[in-house]
Amino acid sequence: MTGKTNPGNFFEDFSLGQAIAHATPRTVTEGDVSLYTALYGARFAVQSSSVFAQSIGLPRAPVDDLLVFHLVFGKTVPDVSLNAVATLGYAAGRFLAPVYPGDSLPAVSEVIGLKENANGETGNVYVRSIGYNQRDQVVLDYVRWVMVRKRNPGLAGDEPVVPDLPEAVASDELSVPEGLDLAGYDRRLAGSEYCWEDYVAGEKIDHVDAMTIEESDHMSATRLYQNTAKVHFNQHAEKDGRFGRRIVYGGHVISLARCLSFNGLGNASKVAAINSGRHVAPTFAGDTIYAWSEVLEKSAVPGRDDLGALRLRTVAANDLACHDFHYRDEQRCYQPGVVLFFDYTVLIPRRP
Amino acid sequence: MTGKTNPGNFFEDFSLGQAIAHATPRTVTEGDVSLYTALYGARFAVQSSSVFAQSIGLPRAPVDDLLVFHLVFGKTVPDVSLNAVATLGYAAGRFLAPVYPGDSLPAVSEVIGLKENANGETGNVYVRSIGYNQRDQVVLDYVRWVMVRKRNPGLAGDEPVVPDLPEAVASDELSVPEGLDLAGYDRRLAGSEYCWEDYVAGEKIDHVDAMTIEESDHMSATRLYQNTAKVHFNQHAEKDGRFGRRIVYGGHVISLARCLSFNGLGNASKVAAINSGRHVAPTFAGDTIYAWSEVLEKSAVPGRDDLGALRLRTVAANDLACHDFHYRDEQRCYQPGVVLFFDYTVLIPRRP
Amino acid sequence: MTGKTNPGNFFEDFSLGQAIAHATPRTVTEGDVSLYTALYGARFAVQSSSVFAQSIGLPRAPVDDLLVFHLVFGKTVPDVSLNAVATLGYAAGRFLAPVYPGDSLPAVSEVIGLKENANGETGNVYVRSIGYNQRDQVVLDYVRWVMVRKRNPGLAGDEPVVPDLPEAVASDELSVPEGLDLAGYDRRLAGSEYCWEDYVAGEKIDHVDAMTIEESDHMSATRLYQNTAKVHFNQHAEKDGRFGRRIVYGGHVISLARCLSFNGLGNASKVAAINSGRHVAPTFAGDTIYAWSEVLEKSAVPGRDDLGALRLRTVAANDLACHDFHYRDEQRCYQPGVVLFFDYTVLIPRRP
Repeated sequence: MTGKTNPGNFFEDFSLGQAIAHATPRTVTEGDVSLYTALYGARFAVQSSSVFAQSIGLPRAPVDDLLVFHLVFGKTVPDVSLNAVATLGYAAGRFLAPVYPGDSLPAVSEVIGLKENANGETGNVYVRSIGYNQRDQVVLDYVRWVMVRKRNPGLAGDEPVVPDLPEAVASDELSVPEGLDLAGYDRRLAGSEYCWEDYVAGEKIDHVDAMTIEESDHMSATRLYQNTAKVHFNQHAEKDGRFGRRIVYGGHVISLARCLSFNGLGNASKVAAINSGRHVAPTFAGDTIYAWSEVLEKSAVPGRDDLGALRLRTVAANDLACHDFHYRDEQRCYQPGVVLFFDYTVLIPRRP
Repeated sequence: MTGKTNPGNFFEDFSLGQAIAHATPRTVTEGDVSLYTALYGARFAVQSSSVFAQSIGLPRAPVDDLLVFHLVFGKTVPDVSLNAVATLGYAAGRFLAPVYPGDSLPAVSEVIGLKENANGETGNVYVRSIGYNQRDQVVLDYVRWVMVRKRNPGLAGDEPVVPDLPEAVASDELSVPEGLDLAGYDRRLAGSEYCWEDYVAGEKIDHVDAMTIEESDHMSATRLYQNTAKVHFNQHAEKDGRFGRRIVYGGHVISLARCLSFNGLGNASKVAAINSGRHVAPTFAGDTIYAWSEVLEKSAVPGRDDLGALRLRTVAANDLACHDFHYRDEQRCYQPGVVLFFDYTVLIPRRP
Repeated sequence: MTGKTNPGNFFEDFSLGQAIAHATPRTVTEGDVSLYTALYGARFAVQSSSVFAQSIGLPRAPVDDLLVFHLVFGKTVPDVSLNAVATLGYAAGRFLAPVYPGDSLPAVSEVIGLKENANGETGNVYVRSIGYNQRDQVVLDYVRWVMVRKRNPGLAGDEPVVPDLPEAVASDELSVPEGLDLAGYDRRLAGSEYCWEDYVAGEKIDHVDAMTIEESDHMSATRLYQNTAKVHFNQHAEKDGRFGRRIVYGGHVISLARCLSFNGLGNASKVAAINSGRHVAPTFAGDTIYAWSEVLEKSAVPGRDDLGALRLRTVAANDLACHDFHYRDEQRCYQPGVVLFFDYTVLIPRRP
């Protein structure tokens, strides 16, 4: 037996300020884009049609922001979360240079926080991960924190370092794709008449549609993202695991909810920021995902009169229609059926 | 709660002559073509190989006609059939400009017929739908009619208008792709030695092969086509629905049958027309689709001695081998197991 | 009923020296590459990133060698193995010109051996199959032999001809892609620090990871390869067949094992030769595939100091973790759980 396989990092292997250059750079292609459509039924016109994208100043249809997120995320798994119990949260995520088919994406991470958990069996690792394109432009910059197993249980007693993370990305930090001009945006072709002006803070939207998850679908997605976390793939081991079955990659649920959100947010094609998010409960094949969104905040984007920003919280629920907008009860506990909340900021056309 | 989601149109929302510009233009890519191959095992040489396509005068491998059909169909669903009980028929379908990867397809429809049903709960809506490419060339023009729910049951008593539809597209209306010249068509490479001359009207061909449908497959296909009909995706709701499970998009069965038909019709790579068709019974995951075809008619194509037309009726059956050519009984009722007939016209090389 | 469908060849239909030009040339695209990633989670950096590929002298990311193998194999099925009971072995396989998206691949085979089996019901057919690109360069040249049913049982008594096949492809017959120069190979980006020097003959590597097979996955793969063998697709017939269910295409298991082998062989991105292989037991949906590899041999590659060759035997096991390296018992019988051995030669960077 040799030690050439990757055992993943345990909590003790991380150190504050540690820089990790992740493996497996990836050229994104039209094939990936088609698979993303086949996996989620994405319908945002900007990403669906190069002609539409060109009508608003882009060179061609950009790659869906969440596909970029999953590809960058996937690279971090072998280094960051192979021994993770769970992803606990996301913060400070910004999508910067748009990604187009043909771009090649490497990724790096920096450890920005470490905190032992009281049980002595795990610790929380905070990483800031950055995905680049082949011109060294940042395409995505985000923080996630994960609960990682210790190699050797017990408390080291190191001073915890928890980074100071913003509740949300500020609107003056949002990046607007170069050349974007929504003056010619055709809402009829996009499938929704609603502009930034039509949404109000506090508004709740039931996205109505739903999608049942199959084993083949979530595994294909997770393989496409080159995400190697074992719990998604190995039924032989998982039958004796925590849940008796494979767990769906949390990002798969994010993309399902986001694509369902088209019905009500059809012009919100551009994700500019990920503010926070949590996988409240695990998801499994056979589950049917519904979603609803609340407009948390509206903000103008400095220097732009063609678009504005909406901060949204999209909640995904399992086997639970969302007309009652389930989220948290009065004790702030997540209500049964809720599997995800995702707090993010989109750019959306203003009324001309 | 807001009204920003699309409730779909009910029978009362349609009016004669109404023009509908559908949302979600779509750039077709090589990724879509690969998925089509992975979904159905398509083997027609012209669509499989650009070198083969160039040997017959085309610039590169064209996109399968039925993939074009599904993409255009998908666009019509949110406007036409979100509240449909069933697609009742197709007619007058013509494939015009060939579609190549990179083409972007918008679609429009016109309401050409309306007819209340006697039960007062539904009505039939006839639409003529047209898909274009980015050069405003028509790529597909077809009629379908669907049974759509009324918002408010009861009879309005309006005069029914049922369009006069041809039994089949006339052979002088068939479009031959520009530049096509089958003089150099290599039947050996195409996998079939049979030409137009070898088929006779009334001939029946059992396609022998069969394909079992998985939930993941039909949902991936339907998502790829951006078809949003809820019954295909939501097991949580459908478990209490008409059939207790998700229904397979009818077009998925058309493509399965068409790809099975390669075994016996290997040179019939070009669909020129859709004459009629009917989804006789719903199809579900777990069903195994077999197919057989009857040559209904042979016709010369004006001005062409390198190719001729075959009008075919391909019948798909579920869990039923097709050596006995099941279709209708003496009372013209569809025999058990039959799920689809599809009456279409193909172009096929003539013997040099 | 007509005879226009392909009944496949039976043992009596093959003759020594017979040349078969296979149908269905195929243009490989980025869509196929994405699907390969989605099917197996392939992570070799050279195939994943065009920028990485260019850093080692290639024009862009090449198509995975095993995807090329499956595409060429698929073409041979309608002519060689439609009536096969099993593929018995592979030998003398060499990957020559690299394949890039856009290449179009036809294939031919020659019958190089024939041997009746004593039961009079089957015979073994040995074919040498060659895949080409559109510039008539050989991309793959390999031998496989299959047990094929006789049309008419009984012994003809013909002298058996069994080709003399090498145990392994000699290292001076390995082809190195034109322009390849591993001087700039970045092992960190590739995800493994191990070079040719770090492996020793006899070394065993447990690849740790595992993948559960779904019906949709193996059928999608097999359809993508345009492989038409009925046993993979038709549950209605297979429920009454040998195993009561669909059989997974053996090549699907080869690719699963190969992609699992990344964990331990992360720099072995180039398959140069297939020496031998055997599908020891059939595989079905629901099976979880694990894999381990033994380094059988190390050899220098003439004229190259940037890379060396490793002859590997990768063993795949079903529902059996591989830390005990199960393969054969003392009587040389395959141990329970073993489903595949695959003996092949990879090129891997030497330490600079």
